[in-house]
Amino acid sequence: MRIDIISAQPWLMESAFEHSILKRAQDKGLVEIQLHNLKEYGLGKHRQIDDYQFGGGAGMVMMVEPILNLIQDLQKDRNYDELIYMTPDGDLFNQKTANQLSLKENILILCGHYKGVDQRIRDHIITREISIGSYVLSGGELAAAVVSDAVIRLLPGVLGDESSALSDSFQDDLLAPPVYTRPAEINGWKVPEILTGGNFPEIEAWREAKALEITQRKRPDLLQDDSLLDN
Amino acid sequence: MRIDIISAQPWLMESAFEHSILKRAQDKGLVEIQLHNLKEYGLGKHRQIDDYQFGGGAGMVMMVEPILNLIQDLQKDRNYDELIYMTPDGDLFNQKTANQLSLKENILILCGHYKGVDQRIRDHIITREISIGSYVLSGGELAAAVVSDAVIRLLPGVLGDESSALSDSFQDDLLAPPVYTRPAEINGWKVPEILTGGNFPEIEAWREAKALEITQRKRPDLLQDDSLLDN
Repeated sequence: MRIDIISAQPWLMESAFEHSILKRAQDKGLVEIQLHNLKEYGLGKHRQIDDYQFGGGAGMVMMVEPILNLIQDLQKDRNYDELIYMTPDGDLFNQKTANQLSLKENILILCGHYKGVDQRIRDHIITREISIGSYVLSGGELAAAVVSDAVIRLLPGVLGDESSALSDSFQDDLLAPPVYTRPAEINGWKVPEILTGGNFPEIEAWREAKALEITQRKRPDLLQDDSLLDN
Repeated sequence: MRIDIISAQPWLMESAFEHSILKRAQDKGLVEIQLHNLKEYGLGKHRQIDDYQFGGGAGMVMMVEPILNLIQDLQKDRNYDELIYMTPDGDLFNQKTANQLSLKENILILCGHYKGVDQRIRDHIITREISIGSYVLSGGELAAAVVSDAVIRLLPGVLGDESSALSDSFQDDLLAPPVYTRPAEINGWKVPEILTGGNFPEIEAWREAKALEITQRKRPDLLQDDSLLDN
């Protein structure tokens, strides 16, 4: 899989890709991540990439031309399965979308900044708009890193223990049951007896019941019609 | 405002705080961000911070003692208004939570990793559990950076143009209207005429209508009973 990320400030997400799981995934050749600095396609000697919005109002808007030129250059080398724009008003990202994207070969992600991108880029170039949640960030950079992380960890071979991702929250529309580790008692706080008893079928049943109980209490929407969260 | 973030891999989020808006906010003294490496409180000569889970199963669990010791040391210097745990099964983060948190003085954020943290830390130490969305990440680091970014940009003086944050998506439960910038035509794609006409009351009405239309189409949940998204 290859992920190209276009940003006015690519350095904001550098550390997310230079360590730990995402670094190892790249070292193993399971994913290639390229960060592109939009400023390199900026116009004129000031490398302009944004301008005031038509009709007035606060905040700058990212211009069509630098983005268009950069994407067209990238498209000379490969076809993209998805051209994604990170924006607070996109489709809400969820585990199902992460699973879908993990099956693609080439993904391009455009990070919004300032007041966002000129609408014409969204109308004519972008194939998918994604929001990581109902809140506003300084830019799309952290959101792009979040999407990349959620997707890359699903690629076969990225996580050491393949079963680990499958037992994560959301993969079966349930939140994960509580977990405990040594010591069995600390500060007067004890581990539930069932977990230390060694009866594994009972432990499994306890975990399933807990997962269901926690999901019902915290996120009943996951158990119901999930049209809101599905894309 | 001060934000302390505890993580087994604090370097994952370093670049998010070292540039742009979050850097300037720190330089101006509007926020102080401290990243704490949990490994420094690890046990024994291997600085152990995680162990196998009771009852069996894939994935390691973060131990109680290193976290407890680190937090107790931090609490010697200040009281925390919130001790937050980043976890996929927490309350869904949204703009309202960001607004609330932006009014606090001291926030502590614990980043989950591996299979998460021993439940006893959640039961006895944590005051608030936050999820940035219905998907699983490698760890809580990017999520902590997302929450910090969403909160810090709301602090007075952080954004250059104060009115800019107020016209963002979600602040009035509406998504933002489309934006356009120069040139008025490119690639055969034109800006809507109303925006270049100079009739500002009409432009304002057009924007309000567009914001409502887009919200109705993409996120009708924002216009309805918002119990699911509110915390």
